[in-house]
Amino acid sequence: MSELNVTERSRLRRLHKRGAFDRETINAILDAGPLCHVAYTIDGRVHCLPTFQWREGNHVYWHGSSAGRMLKNAPTQEVCLTVTHMDGYVIARSAFHHSVNYRSVMLFGTPKKVEGDENATERLKTFVDQIFPGRWDTLRPMNEKELKATTILSMEIKEGAAKIRSGDPVDDEEDYALPIWAGTLPVQMVAGQPAPDARLDPAIPMPEDVKKFTYR
Amino acid sequence: MSELNVTERSRLRRLHKRGAFDRETINAILDAGPLCHVAYTIDGRVHCLPTFQWREGNHVYWHGSSAGRMLKNAPTQEVCLTVTHMDGYVIARSAFHHSVNYRSVMLFGTPKKVEGDENATERLKTFVDQIFPGRWDTLRPMNEKELKATTILSMEIKEGAAKIRSGDPVDDEEDYALPIWAGTLPVQMVAGQPAPDARLDPAIPMPEDVKKFTYR
Repeated sequence: MSELNVTERSRLRRLHKRGAFDRETINAILDAGPLCHVAYTIDGRVHCLPTFQWREGNHVYWHGSSAGRMLKNAPTQEVCLTVTHMDGYVIARSAFHHSVNYRSVMLFGTPKKVEGDENATERLKTFVDQIFPGRWDTLRPMNEKELKATTILSMEIKEGAAKIRSGDPVDDEEDYALPIWAGTLPVQMVAGQPAPDARLDPAIPMPEDVKKFTYR
Repeated sequence: MSELNVTERSRLRRLHKRGAFDRETINAILDAGPLCHVAYTIDGRVHCLPTFQWREGNHVYWHGSSAGRMLKNAPTQEVCLTVTHMDGYVIARSAFHHSVNYRSVMLFGTPKKVEGDENATERLKTFVDQIFPGRWDTLRPMNEKELKATTILSMEIKEGAAKIRSGDPVDDEEDYALPIWAGTLPVQMVAGQPAPDARLDPAIPMPEDVKKFTYR
């Protein structure tokens, strides 16, 4: 199994057993949901911006408006992209041992702008089809103006780590005898019923890719 | 209604209608779920770290191990704390107008360490009781060693903004005539059934604060 090199920055200082560097684990967490936060500096000040990421092979991608500050500033510097899925509350017998079950990935790197309309279109198609398989080909095609207004960044998955916590609380040994309830409370993202656009012609049926959507 | 001052950094450059600076909106988003990401630099390199936040009045708090790099580095610099709740996929008639419904808050400031055991204990009690009302008093009390091992940071809610998108896709006017399904697909965090710790005495009943938990 392929592993990311452990660097001074990505090595885990604490709770090593929670860390993982293998690509299989990292990829599974990235693929489990698109929401990520990207940290970098704008005018020398650090920003933490939410956006969607998607992965193709050993690269992670995100996109946005070419006019926005977000993507103008990112390609010139090292950034940190983090994906976090919260899986539950860990309810212990002492406040100190309360915790959270989660899966997260933190990646470091300098993003590059995806160049070329064909290349950009191909990346966006992958992005849309990863969420709604087959949807891209049913859409009104991208036009030149839209492609120009869209910046896609790519970053190689090279430096970073996954962190995972799962399972029961770990209490102090003597606390297990206390008459205090302990356990876990699972949480997860779930999708509800798709709602047609108010202006949608009711004769247009809901497509299978939307009907079958499940939050990965 | 009290509003945050709009600064050069926090003013919204694009899609102004999505932005909000009033405390009521900002507080509601912070209170809607504890997961946040904090961005700041460690050894000159930007990091994006997931953690839990909680709010008391005009301050936001987060905590962690006193031994970790995360909280050692944060109080000496400006950070950016972001909370993002994803509310749904916005499914448009063109790829370009696909979007996401969400509520997010981005806050800027220099955190301060919460000093004094009594003060720290009070903050942690609020944190626990905001998630599981009344739980703190049922727990084995914090001891001095645990308090020493825990660092709490506070940051005044002074500079920042909320961003919200909701509702249907906004397609190009001419695209509404196309026979393409469009609408929204809501997503949300939900809690499952609490699971007792494997080592829990089955005679200990599940407390009301756990039973009644709902993801805010």
